[in-house]
Amino acid sequence: MFTYCMRRRLCLLLTREKSAPAALTHQSRYESTTPVLDLQHYISQDQTGNRSAYGPLGTELKRNILRQWWASVVESKSEVFSVSTPHCSTGGGAAKLVDRGTLDELRDLPEGQLKERLSRLLYHSHDLRSSLLQGALLQYIPSLMLMNRKLPFGLAETGFCYRPETASPNTIGCGSSEVTEASLVWFCSPRTSSQWLDYWARQRLQWWRKFASGPSEFSVCDVLSEELRDGVSRGVKVLYQFPSGPETLETLWRLGDAELLKSHQGSQAELQCKDGRKQVVPHVLSISADMDRGVLAYLFNSLQIVQKVDSKQMLHQRKVLKLHPTLAPVKVALDMGRGSTSELRQVCEGLLQDLLEAGISAWPGYTDTTQSSLDSLHTKYDEMGVLFTVMISESTLENGLLLVRNRDTTIRETMHISEIRQFLLKYISAAENI
Amino acid sequence: MFTYCMRRRLCLLLTREKSAPAALTHQSRYESTTPVLDLQHYISQDQTGNRSAYGPLGTELKRNILRQWWASVVESKSEVFSVSTPHCSTGGGAAKLVDRGTLDELRDLPEGQLKERLSRLLYHSHDLRSSLLQGALLQYIPSLMLMNRKLPFGLAETGFCYRPETASPNTIGCGSSEVTEASLVWFCSPRTSSQWLDYWARQRLQWWRKFASGPSEFSVCDVLSEELRDGVSRGVKVLYQFPSGPETLETLWRLGDAELLKSHQGSQAELQCKDGRKQVVPHVLSISADMDRGVLAYLFNSLQIVQKVDSKQMLHQRKVLKLHPTLAPVKVALDMGRGSTSELRQVCEGLLQDLLEAGISAWPGYTDTTQSSLDSLHTKYDEMGVLFTVMISESTLENGLLLVRNRDTTIRETMHISEIRQFLLKYISAAENI
Repeated sequence: MFTYCMRRRLCLLLTREKSAPAALTHQSRYESTTPVLDLQHYISQDQTGNRSAYGPLGTELKRNILRQWWASVVESKSEVFSVSTPHCSTGGGAAKLVDRGTLDELRDLPEGQLKERLSRLLYHSHDLRSSLLQGALLQYIPSLMLMNRKLPFGLAETGFCYRPETASPNTIGCGSSEVTEASLVWFCSPRTSSQWLDYWARQRLQWWRKFASGPSEFSVCDVLSEELRDGVSRGVKVLYQFPSGPETLETLWRLGDAELLKSHQGSQAELQCKDGRKQVVPHVLSISADMDRGVLAYLFNSLQIVQKVDSKQMLHQRKVLKLHPTLAPVKVALDMGRGSTSELRQVCEGLLQDLLEAGISAWPGYTDTTQSSLDSLHTKYDEMGVLFTVMISESTLENGLLLVRNRDTTIRETMHISEIRQFLLKYISAAENI
Repeated sequence: MFTYCMRRRLCLLLTREKSAPAALTHQSRYESTTPVLDLQHYISQDQTGNRSAYGPLGTELKRNILRQWWASVVESKSEVFSVSTPHCSTGGGAAKLVDRGTLDELRDLPEGQLKERLSRLLYHSHDLRSSLLQGALLQYIPSLMLMNRKLPFGLAETGFCYRPETASPNTIGCGSSEVTEASLVWFCSPRTSSQWLDYWARQRLQWWRKFASGPSEFSVCDVLSEELRDGVSRGVKVLYQFPSGPETLETLWRLGDAELLKSHQGSQAELQCKDGRKQVVPHVLSISADMDRGVLAYLFNSLQIVQKVDSKQMLHQRKVLKLHPTLAPVKVALDMGRGSTSELRQVCEGLLQDLLEAGISAWPGYTDTTQSSLDSLHTKYDEMGVLFTVMISESTLENGLLLVRNRDTTIRETMHISEIRQFLLKYISAAENI
């Protein structure tokens, strides 16, 4: 979930003047006089004012990112299996979940009984998970049967975690500890665990960069050995260079076998796998990404200010959210030009349904009846990151032709209405396979 | 999340002998002497013994169900938008989230200070949401801009909720209160809200039945007026007839405008929408499904016992998990017959990769090197709900032909290896469009 401070930072960045706070020194892709980018459809603040939620576009962007992660980590690999583990457990989490009623009851107790009841409550109440690692470790033995005890294999899961509020320089003052984690727990031979860490670090960096508009802002670095916590023999981080400084999107830990042994207090024999002809307890890699921060990274990364001088030598700035075609939440917006409103509307509705059925997310711009110029329409869609704008006008009724404008090239093409669906499908799938 | 009792019930049902508990009286689709169905890949118990998680197949089944819900409710409708709201809020939830450290501190306090600190803690700690309705209501105003204040429109979300442990006859003894909810909050004109309730009830029932092997086990019923809680003027439930009795999969409530007004304590004017030429505060329908129970319903619904008399007049029982082609977590299993192991393996690996790239989930059965008869292989795959079994053998190396067995018809066909991918894609998409 987007925390309040994330949104505040985003707004700060997008609104900052020349007198921007000293902390915001990285201005790689944006000018410092950038006016406010309207992000209301991506991240919206609720009534309470200090908590925010994803709006429709933000939700779809996040869904698209998670879908691509799943396709890359799970669906394309036969040795990775998915699991879905409980959010609550007994022990291990950072926060206790206590029934509201029980707490209210507690408040009404006489002081003398309070302490004993509180202890009992603590003992019995559930913990909310702070990562997906423990859940996957507990699924290790059931998965062994599936894999015939053959290494390597992985267990993948995406989901909500609750992390204690940390006070790192980049998250001061955040009111929320919600995180959508995408986790792969990889079990492999102790001999090869270091190579696998390198493999996955490379793989993960490539993945983040694949959808980037500015790939160089994504990087990896080794975690210094003095920063490693107990039981971790090596660590790698995938970073994104936010204007306020680098932040961690994903961590890769080489955990050895200690965590696995700890979570299975039974015999070691049960945990053993085949490594060639030997029987070994596998080593564990924990690869886990913060997808909310990932959404933010891609938003920052794809925002571009394009400058243009018009025929009257006036300088224009165009803000474009150049989200990758597979990530863009809206692929095409449908709008009406001048002409018989009711007839044009029918054409729009037919085309919209056609596109939706083909799985192309389309924006019903034609339902907005407030008059706006073509220019302001393009400005709006560019800021929303809409890939194409299709304009249906009087001439469409006559000869079936419509105007298709490309977000990135700003070129307008004439196309027959029967071709648009295939054109969009091809464009998106071509971008996916680069 | 599957609760312990759900799994226990499932096992009970599948293992029960003639002396089954009286409660389990509905035996519509299964014989009472059914031996244990191996569900380990669908639902697996973790080390702690009394909490269970989805295994790989269960996770994929649930993902497929959620994906179909999303496609039906969000992607195919231009007036439904997706949101993603915080899991935690201040007030309104059934459970409080308390930092572990804070609770530990509390325990060490002298009795005299305990009460005051507890009150403060209660006041400041977050609540975990018990449904998705409140989040959507708070997103109403930001969404209005998107919709140009035009009714009707809907806000959709799927996600984890935490519900207080209820003691209904069908959930006694459950240790968990985790639910994956799929929610649509529908805003419409007060004039039409009753028709919209009928529309959505019909729509939702159709959806559940679309993927059912026995559609008649899904039904709708009106909630009796004496069972309606305050502020709800009508309610409809979608039920599934479990062997232990009917249970609610989805509820549809007509809420009027009270909840919306309550969650926005500002002026009524802000909430108003266009209803033709009038300005109205919309009425709200809350449509919300318990997807974990949905997974269980489809598992029960698709389990069939097929009886067959062989050539020696012996009666055989075949258990088949006849999951709908779009829901089945594994579409095809690849196995090797006799022949040069290393060469056959190469063919299998190539074909597996080919299928995975086409988005067809394939099972690498060939990696299991324990010898098993073709019959026991089919039994295993039928119980897993695998749609097709592909057998690659010596003759595949010679002429490219392989054997493809259909789960539902048990018919074996010979097919060229180059055709299998297209054949599977066609089969699945045909089933989707029925």
